[in-house]
Amino acid sequence: MIRVAIIGASGYTGAESIEIILRHNEAELTYLSALPEECGVVEEVFPHFKGRCDLQIEPLDINKLSKQADVALCCLPHKVSMGFVPKLLKAGLKVVDFSADYRIKDAEVYEKFYQVKHTDTDNLAWAVYGLPELFRKQIKGANLIANPGCFPTGALLAVVPLLKNGLIETDSIIVNSVTGASGAGKNPSVKFHFPNMNENIFAYGIGTHRHMPEMEQIASEIAGVDVNILFQPHVGPFDRGILSTVYCQPKGKTTGEQLTKLYKDFYAGEPFVQICGGAPAIKDIAGTNYCHIYPACVKGRIVVFSAMDNLVKGASGQAIQNMNIIFGLEESLGLK
Amino acid sequence: MIRVAIIGASGYTGAESIEIILRHNEAELTYLSALPEECGVVEEVFPHFKGRCDLQIEPLDINKLSKQADVALCCLPHKVSMGFVPKLLKAGLKVVDFSADYRIKDAEVYEKFYQVKHTDTDNLAWAVYGLPELFRKQIKGANLIANPGCFPTGALLAVVPLLKNGLIETDSIIVNSVTGASGAGKNPSVKFHFPNMNENIFAYGIGTHRHMPEMEQIASEIAGVDVNILFQPHVGPFDRGILSTVYCQPKGKTTGEQLTKLYKDFYAGEPFVQICGGAPAIKDIAGTNYCHIYPACVKGRIVVFSAMDNLVKGASGQAIQNMNIIFGLEESLGLK
Amino acid sequence: MIRVAIIGASGYTGAESIEIILRHNEAELTYLSALPEECGVVEEVFPHFKGRCDLQIEPLDINKLSKQADVALCCLPHKVSMGFVPKLLKAGLKVVDFSADYRIKDAEVYEKFYQVKHTDTDNLAWAVYGLPELFRKQIKGANLIANPGCFPTGALLAVVPLLKNGLIETDSIIVNSVTGASGAGKNPSVKFHFPNMNENIFAYGIGTHRHMPEMEQIASEIAGVDVNILFQPHVGPFDRGILSTVYCQPKGKTTGEQLTKLYKDFYAGEPFVQICGGAPAIKDIAGTNYCHIYPACVKGRIVVFSAMDNLVKGASGQAIQNMNIIFGLEESLGLK
Amino acid sequence: MIRVAIIGASGYTGAESIEIILRHNEAELTYLSALPEECGVVEEVFPHFKGRCDLQIEPLDINKLSKQADVALCCLPHKVSMGFVPKLLKAGLKVVDFSADYRIKDAEVYEKFYQVKHTDTDNLAWAVYGLPELFRKQIKGANLIANPGCFPTGALLAVVPLLKNGLIETDSIIVNSVTGASGAGKNPSVKFHFPNMNENIFAYGIGTHRHMPEMEQIASEIAGVDVNILFQPHVGPFDRGILSTVYCQPKGKTTGEQLTKLYKDFYAGEPFVQICGGAPAIKDIAGTNYCHIYPACVKGRIVVFSAMDNLVKGASGQAIQNMNIIFGLEESLGLK
Repeated sequence: MIRVAIIGASGYTGAESIEIILRHNEAELTYLSALPEECGVVEEVFPHFKGRCDLQIEPLDINKLSKQADVALCCLPHKVSMGFVPKLLKAGLKVVDFSADYRIKDAEVYEKFYQVKHTDTDNLAWAVYGLPELFRKQIKGANLIANPGCFPTGALLAVVPLLKNGLIETDSIIVNSVTGASGAGKNPSVKFHFPNMNENIFAYGIGTHRHMPEMEQIASEIAGVDVNILFQPHVGPFDRGILSTVYCQPKGKTTGEQLTKLYKDFYAGEPFVQICGGAPAIKDIAGTNYCHIYPACVKGRIVVFSAMDNLVKGASGQAIQNMNIIFGLEESLGLK
Repeated sequence: MIRVAIIGASGYTGAESIEIILRHNEAELTYLSALPEECGVVEEVFPHFKGRCDLQIEPLDINKLSKQADVALCCLPHKVSMGFVPKLLKAGLKVVDFSADYRIKDAEVYEKFYQVKHTDTDNLAWAVYGLPELFRKQIKGANLIANPGCFPTGALLAVVPLLKNGLIETDSIIVNSVTGASGAGKNPSVKFHFPNMNENIFAYGIGTHRHMPEMEQIASEIAGVDVNILFQPHVGPFDRGILSTVYCQPKGKTTGEQLTKLYKDFYAGEPFVQICGGAPAIKDIAGTNYCHIYPACVKGRIVVFSAMDNLVKGASGQAIQNMNIIFGLEESLGLK
Repeated sequence: MIRVAIIGASGYTGAESIEIILRHNEAELTYLSALPEECGVVEEVFPHFKGRCDLQIEPLDINKLSKQADVALCCLPHKVSMGFVPKLLKAGLKVVDFSADYRIKDAEVYEKFYQVKHTDTDNLAWAVYGLPELFRKQIKGANLIANPGCFPTGALLAVVPLLKNGLIETDSIIVNSVTGASGAGKNPSVKFHFPNMNENIFAYGIGTHRHMPEMEQIASEIAGVDVNILFQPHVGPFDRGILSTVYCQPKGKTTGEQLTKLYKDFYAGEPFVQICGGAPAIKDIAGTNYCHIYPACVKGRIVVFSAMDNLVKGASGQAIQNMNIIFGLEESLGLK
Repeated sequence: MIRVAIIGASGYTGAESIEIILRHNEAELTYLSALPEECGVVEEVFPHFKGRCDLQIEPLDINKLSKQADVALCCLPHKVSMGFVPKLLKAGLKVVDFSADYRIKDAEVYEKFYQVKHTDTDNLAWAVYGLPELFRKQIKGANLIANPGCFPTGALLAVVPLLKNGLIETDSIIVNSVTGASGAGKNPSVKFHFPNMNENIFAYGIGTHRHMPEMEQIASEIAGVDVNILFQPHVGPFDRGILSTVYCQPKGKTTGEQLTKLYKDFYAGEPFVQICGGAPAIKDIAGTNYCHIYPACVKGRIVVFSAMDNLVKGASGQAIQNMNIIFGLEESLGLK
């Protein structure tokens, strides 16, 4: 049994990680921590775990943790995470970090978008970007995984087969996404107050969303040239899921059939990426670790639709997929 | 043109009042006030008024107000309202007060449920409870209207025909209500954070809801004896409307047909109470000043269903209905 | 490995059963059937199983089925089910039947509420009502389980501790329930058309709902005297879950603390019934097999709140809980 | 008083038109018709009009109609409408037609996208496209208005200021839209069954949506050259509203400030188009005739956001705006 710690267990991705590990046959929760004011028995912090988990969420004690766990799922927010990850690594744990702190390889870009100095560039250098469909080999031996952002996961899975094969103009990509409201996290705010968010949909982060440079970095790495992505997120009145509609300009001619074949070949054997025969729907992937993709040709453009759950494939599910890979377990344990 | 001021214009009932007055042919908005930090042009405070209302919401200046308005819709919260109403009255305005401060005639009961001393018992004594279907005559000449609570409006309209005719045991009434989330007001909170409230429904105020004594006071006044009501509110994942299911024990035998006739007679000529032939639905009254009622006999009990909009018939619409009556206007102006 | 067949696999309870068995470590799906026009590969009938289940749903072939399965989860509708259950039993299968056909012991009552002659009174006689918290012993040796209705499950779990201990007037029980829209099944209809059901809530089945006699039968069996229940269902704008608010008249005096102790004792050791310290919320049990209960004393009455998922504890989860008991497996397999 | 007939009054746009005319001070409903099986008193066909409208919806009788109305709002579906419009015109009525039958000037394009022969090319020739912000002058004297489609209204208002001023590449326009579910009309279907549509969002009409040629025709007319638009609609879990995110390639350099000025100038004096300072939200325009627009510069592209209500500005509200213009009334009557 892999012994799993969750750092920052009191938020949405913490809860989702608990949920998945509870169903995992070869891993068990052994240590949960959060800010002192958010500690308590799991079933009191999250009433949906009543009768299902009697663990205590407690203030972080690295010493104790180091003896009780093999791996830490670090669900801390951006900027906070890089203060703790070095200690977790030093304590001998494998770390899957949910924050953005180890995703952007160029510390300057990080500092521009996250408005803070990077304080752990050493570990940043060798952290592995945890998108298994692209970097499974590197993940295998890694001690520190930068778990991808939710939007980048859906967008990259949609566009990478085209970039890898040089099929599109690399400055033509537009990623139009709609996320469910859980993406905002657990803290109440005016925009996400039910009477405001219900029956509503709107754009945000116009030109400034932090997942844009993350997408561009990985897309460029795959393409071998600089890729420029216009990413526009929106939020809609539902709990979970991200639907991304990706528009690209093909270099040559292609057909829907060719695209479907290309995508099916590219993702052959991938347990969690499914190529659909029509528009994917958020509801078909909500609560699962699957990403549904449909590539289409429309009026001389390529339009790729991708649907995945922001809290599972876009966060906790992918983290545990990464954990499974690191420890040589069957990749879909806890996730089917 | 009646000149209307709204005090506390920055909340949900303030906005709903603005909406209605904008469509009112014989009344116009002339003065809007709110707390300093919530002031501004209407269309900036509420983007849905963009291009529809260029008035300024400003900090309250009674002097200025007294010259610009004939009536004040006072949308201040409980406890705050009674600090301002005496001043508004002294300034020569008619006042329709949305708070509970002038509804509970027994100051001791008020003080028990609202946990504060009543500071304006003088005006409390002669304030008129503004449920036009019961107290139209008194409303006509009134200077101060205590606009009814949202739950009491729907529950009383459902149960009053039975009480007035002595048809039910007065200690048998159970009011089971479900309200939309706008009932919580505009301030964000954990329970009403979209990812918590969406796809959810739960009870609250168990045994303690402040609308219970209000219902009992009016019900007792109508029945001529003490009426005891068990009121249990719930909140569900929708914006507007209250569905109340009222259970009572009849004294003698009755039939559905007799009940329907009783209710149709009781509310004959009432513009805003409609007796339905089956279960009413929230969606049919959302955004309107109507209350839909269906009385039924089930297994020896009487069950009355009532549906009305908490922000309209349960607040702003009823206030303007009261205003229309006070000023001798057609009662449904602005409300059809 | 227990080999599981699902008969009527193309509906919501069929899908939910597939979902649970896919996560079950000691049971596997071996045979799925549906009406010919609803057959096909699971992942095409239900796109959310894409990549997760490559079984074929096929027209029912009892012969084939009898060789491939140990137990049948029979998800056929009322009236249809009793035509097939005898054949499934004759084929040597254990049967958990989701319909109402084997729940109502008095065939006359069945015929009155379901408007059809009962054609399998032989098996009706010895079918066991599958509410494990009440009838675990009988379930153990049973060949045919009548899986309880969704509303009765939540209502009975709420009221049975009171009845068993003779604490309430047996003609005083009112069950006010709100169910999510999945309770309507998968066939589109005017009432459940999204623009009609969204932002809506309404009562239905006034005085006529078929779950009323089912509740009364079991309640009476537990109480040892005839119990009369007024059951009023409503449907609200969410997918899953039933919130029941149960009002009863206590025989003597009691307190909230006494009730809580009573309920905790009554359900001690039950894996799926949790006694809460306040109002339960649908969202905390959605997607799980748990029932959350909170008993309260309000103004001389007892009010019990219960929340459970209509498709899980109210259907497929409970069926698989029953299956686990029949086969001597750990009761919560697949359900944690 | 303008006497208004509604043909096809039993659908969503019929109901919305009734709603608006009921609040209109200089127009009154005088005649309502629908298919025989959908006739009846308004308040029975639509319970939300209970007590508000006692008119009868009756099978169409052109003779009777011609004596009772000055204008017909023709809410019939595509293909059906062109069978009735010639008769309405011959009867001396002004006609505002909600269908697509008179929008596409090129009958061949119409026939390709709507898969039916056009049977009224005579009237097609002189019908006026009823987007007041572009064609107010022509609307003034018109007898037959082709009321615009819902998506084209929002998309054209977003992009026309750019096209009129030659600021963008005319083959670069991508219109990504999300509509509420009322866009599907009133007939129940699998996709719009509440348990399927709730908590869901998906694309449809990929490359084939009929509003695409309509957008292109008007855009080309305004630009003076052929405009090529990639239009991709999606549907989300809310009742009303369309949010369009429009991506274009500018010809030269521009800034957000310049765009805002351009848009404010272009729509100066327009009562129903509002230029916002940030992303517009569906909830701010739901139930109104307003379109909120925000133009932004992002990474060298222009992105324009537009939000409007598909049933009001996208159908009934715009129709009545057109009616007001035709009859020389104040344009916003009934619509404020």
